[in-house]
Amino acid sequence: MENAMAELIAPTERTRLKRLPDRGAFERETVNAILDEGLVCHMGFVHDEQPFVIPTTYARIDDGLYVHGSAASRTLRTLRGELPVCITVTLLDGLVLARSAFHHSMNYRSVVLLGAAAEVTEPDEKLRALEAVVEHMAPGRWAEVRPPTVQEMKGTMVLRLPIAEASAKIRRGGPIDDAEDMTWPCWAGHVPVRLTALAPVPASTVLPGFPAPAGVNPYVEDYA
Amino acid sequence: MENAMAELIAPTERTRLKRLPDRGAFERETVNAILDEGLVCHMGFVHDEQPFVIPTTYARIDDGLYVHGSAASRTLRTLRGELPVCITVTLLDGLVLARSAFHHSMNYRSVVLLGAAAEVTEPDEKLRALEAVVEHMAPGRWAEVRPPTVQEMKGTMVLRLPIAEASAKIRRGGPIDDAEDMTWPCWAGHVPVRLTALAPVPASTVLPGFPAPAGVNPYVEDYA
Repeated sequence: MENAMAELIAPTERTRLKRLPDRGAFERETVNAILDEGLVCHMGFVHDEQPFVIPTTYARIDDGLYVHGSAASRTLRTLRGELPVCITVTLLDGLVLARSAFHHSMNYRSVVLLGAAAEVTEPDEKLRALEAVVEHMAPGRWAEVRPPTVQEMKGTMVLRLPIAEASAKIRRGGPIDDAEDMTWPCWAGHVPVRLTALAPVPASTVLPGFPAPAGVNPYVEDYA
Repeated sequence: MENAMAELIAPTERTRLKRLPDRGAFERETVNAILDEGLVCHMGFVHDEQPFVIPTTYARIDDGLYVHGSAASRTLRTLRGELPVCITVTLLDGLVLARSAFHHSMNYRSVVLLGAAAEVTEPDEKLRALEAVVEHMAPGRWAEVRPPTVQEMKGTMVLRLPIAEASAKIRRGGPIDDAEDMTWPCWAGHVPVRLTALAPVPASTVLPGFPAPAGVNPYVEDYA
């Protein structure tokens, strides 16, 4: 970039927030940070006029979001036809307890991506996408594990959705109560929540001399 | 029920798993438990042939899932026309680190609900739904807070989706590696993850003498 301004993803009629527009964010950096912290996305697509929303793992490389699955998957086989898709990633950050029932809320950061997903057939990009998915779960893991075989690559389909039509939505902080509720006799505030990893559980067959990874996706609080 | 058999939600062509069918579950008790633990659902709907997936809070009462929002919300105003909708709740339970890149996976419990959402206009049911949403976040909270005014009720739309066409999907446990990978020189196992609440953050204006709630949704590990 030629200047210090944040790169923006151009809002469209479909991604501009109609309500509470101050919760919207279109900086690519903000969108990318949310996508990199999340571990599961919810992928929406339409089949016979019925919307379906399916949770799946994913990874981001540059301006592309990659999902993968079995080459036999009905969902992926449908989507590779470049049908319209929506991929949403939501990070829950807290519960907001206001004095009034009405103003209860949640703190969160979410990204909604719209577009069409295309199948990745170029072998190098396909392998890099699968590497990114494993590294997204546990950084450093790809170098340790048995790489995919030709047969496994054949049995896996990878789709790429460009991060082009996208918006983030963020709510932070405590409750916003009405002035007349400030003396209502109850506690008010917010309870932050976060994903925490518990102690790793080794497979019963694990070989001696190989310790568990020191950490997983940085969004997940490291186990003590 | 007249006997001890679990009540099943009848699978349909749309909810029966085509792949890995042993991960599917149709017991109503299983579906309800996942819905009651989750805090955020992802709601999918179609507008101008484009699917949208929007995160939102919700609550279950009996065989109904309730979502709410501003009466001015485009999304809710669209959906109350009983359009097809899909609501998905996903609980991430762990990261599964196999010896092969290919067998990496996640542990999770998810529910996919299909159907059409109808607006709740009956005042008692509408109020009970909003109570359930607040109680879902923090049990006991409803009794403490300022109840909704007539104006707030008017400004809020509540939709109900019957829990009729639904399926759960569950993956648990460690990696399932190929026999020939068992001696691959790396750690293998799974890392459980869970949502944890941090210390509550009181609003700066909170009145003295009102302690923070002892806990929130039971799925969230209590803060120490």
